Amino acid sequence: MSLLLVLSMLGCLMASSPLSAQPTLVSQPVWTNLPGAEYPRVHSDLRVTFRLQAPNAQKVELVPGGNDNGLGAGPFEMTKDEKGFWTVTTPSAVPGFHYYWFSVDGLAVNDPNTYTFFGWNKECSGIDIPDPQGDFYQVKDVPHGDLRSRWYYSKTTQSWRHIIVYTPPDYDANPKGRYPVLYLQHGSGESERSWAEQGRVNFILDNLIAAKKARPMIVVLENGMVASKPGAAPGAGGRRNEAFAEVVIHDLIPYIDANFRTLPDRMNRAIAGLSMGAGQALQIGLSNLDKFAYIGAFSGGGIRNFDLTTSYNGVFRDPAAFNKRVRVLWFGAGSAEAARMTAVKESVEAMNKAGIKAVWFESPGTSHEWQTWRRSLNDFAPRLFPR
Amino acid sequence: MSLLLVLSMLGCLMASSPLSAQPTLVSQPVWTNLPGAEYPRVHSDLRVTFRLQAPNAQKVELVPGGNDNGLGAGPFEMTKDEKGFWTVTTPSAVPGFHYYWFSVDGLAVNDPNTYTFFGWNKECSGIDIPDPQGDFYQVKDVPHGDLRSRWYYSKTTQSWRHIIVYTPPDYDANPKGRYPVLYLQHGSGESERSWAEQGRVNFILDNLIAAKKARPMIVVLENGMVASKPGAAPGAGGRRNEAFAEVVIHDLIPYIDANFRTLPDRMNRAIAGLSMGAGQALQIGLSNLDKFAYIGAFSGGGIRNFDLTTSYNGVFRDPAAFNKRVRVLWFGAGSAEAARMTAVKESVEAMNKAGIKAVWFESPGTSHEWQTWRRSLNDFAPRLFPR
Repeated sequence: MSLLLVLSMLGCLMASSPLSAQPTLVSQPVWTNLPGAEYPRVHSDLRVTFRLQAPNAQKVELVPGGNDNGLGAGPFEMTKDEKGFWTVTTPSAVPGFHYYWFSVDGLAVNDPNTYTFFGWNKECSGIDIPDPQGDFYQVKDVPHGDLRSRWYYSKTTQSWRHIIVYTPPDYDANPKGRYPVLYLQHGSGESERSWAEQGRVNFILDNLIAAKKARPMIVVLENGMVASKPGAAPGAGGRRNEAFAEVVIHDLIPYIDANFRTLPDRMNRAIAGLSMGAGQALQIGLSNLDKFAYIGAFSGGGIRNFDLTTSYNGVFRDPAAFNKRVRVLWFGAGSAEAARMTAVKESVEAMNKAGIKAVWFESPGTSHEWQTWRRSLNDFAPRLFPR
Repeated sequence: MSLLLVLSMLGCLMASSPLSAQPTLVSQPVWTNLPGAEYPRVHSDLRVTFRLQAPNAQKVELVPGGNDNGLGAGPFEMTKDEKGFWTVTTPSAVPGFHYYWFSVDGLAVNDPNTYTFFGWNKECSGIDIPDPQGDFYQVKDVPHGDLRSRWYYSKTTQSWRHIIVYTPPDYDANPKGRYPVLYLQHGSGESERSWAEQGRVNFILDNLIAAKKARPMIVVLENGMVASKPGAAPGAGGRRNEAFAEVVIHDLIPYIDANFRTLPDRMNRAIAGLSMGAGQALQIGLSNLDKFAYIGAFSGGGIRNFDLTTSYNGVFRDPAAFNKRVRVLWFGAGSAEAARMTAVKESVEAMNKAGIKAVWFESPGTSHEWQTWRRSLNDFAPRLFPR
């Protein structure tokens, strides 16, 4: 990232910071902080100072969520002052959203100063480091769509399920309008809230639609951590993904088409997801080409050792027919997670070589984190539903 | 509460519990638990067992949020087993939603097994104890409205503000329909999320509307913890409430009337709130009778030492005129918080004696907690907007 861009962004930080009279200390709380919480604070060079008051603790560490977390590979030891405040300042962080928590004498504890976000299978602290190129996911003075909480009954899981549905800004004012639909999935350990909260999906779509870069569309967020059978705890892998596919095909799509003003055909229906959700999107999309014409895999495995005749039950076998049927097949990852994604990238190259049109996107400098996925959506959504 | 009712409810618990073969141990996780989390567990007699794994801790307590919390007046000392699990079983709890956290060697820590809810000015653990009479706030097979997340710009606070708007089930299908609006506020330390999450406002309205007990209406949830001036931290009392009144009158109502299909006149506009929000509702409502014809104060102070000629700048002075103008003036509280509410109840009695029609409602057995407010809304909403 350009230092000039960082510095130009910091003009704003300096103007709004209570410490602006002391430019060497310029730092600010961010939107992921609770109202009034002065810590964590992001410095002008994107170092971050974290603080926790725990006078009786013997050892406190800052723990970024995972090794490719943009806060760096922790844990970071914190030091205690005479008032019992433990602090640490990290190296310069990568812009974007990062999960973290504290380890207090070995106990994982959220930062009481931030909102929590569903990740790592729990309510988890998060910090959103400003990105000088992050204008595309800010709330701006453009028409805003809704994020609608809805409950619907799934015969597959035999339970009421919570979904969040983005409806575009003109949905209410245009009561005869019908819209294409993107089904958009989170990663493992996350939930239907994740694209709405960490992902800022509504702001990304609002801004793309206002700039006429994307068509007004409905976006549906479901929870892909489905239990392998009704009543069971959410399981990992295998049967979970099959159960989720059944939810999407048998319950969710019919519900959405019956309850929202959709364009209910394959040319107006897309599916995408990140990480675990990328695998689900590929599996569900490629197995149901009568329902989807656009498929996006953000930072997802799922496709390795591409073979034209056998991969995904031979769906790619006739490249010309495939290209006609699947209008967008999109793969992407952060450049900093490229090593993990080599097999995917090689498969995409093999696809292209074999005549399958597949897009490869790289998010500069980011890893297996939300900044990669915000940028992925910002690249993917404009390619959908050409008029 | 009737023990018979509790026992009849437990038929369901026993049937669905993995421990149902051992009836003396019947207990279950509740919806406030994370998916798959086995603790906390509610027993058949409404005792609750909490558990936290913290092998290195010296002292762990369960801390209910406040002294009139339905879990009882803690803190409750927890005891450690050889695997480092700390547990405690509370006395039988009052049905409804209760905030709580753990104290681990003096540090307030959320239960990693539950969702968090915004209360006590933070993300806070909560448990919703089943109520045999709690059918009215369950998700049921009736038409469901939406809870819509929206952002709008407030000139008063000079910031984008997040609101949640309930639109009734027929809002989309009836694109020429216009609806009355209830502005509904949370308590101190809570947020615009609180009625949506802790309060289950959408299920209460869905069920009332399906039973034709309440008119289809829009419900608007704003954040009453407004900073006393733009950019400041959210302040307490005084100027905060004035600032919030300015937000509601100058920014929020015009925004809602411009962006939702409202009936934009006083006979179709109500304001209510709980605790701090009750005071705000009374202050805003009674000072703006050109805008509101229905006012509800749930467990709120605000009105004490009622004086017909001086209270609220003399708005009550002419009881006949007042009764004609204010169609519902509603006060209520939980019977278990009655002592705190004596002054309010006496004021309501004085009002009625003076010829002011004011409703007094008591929620049996509950205190300054969400079960009181769910029941309050269930009583209040049907009285609004008579055709």
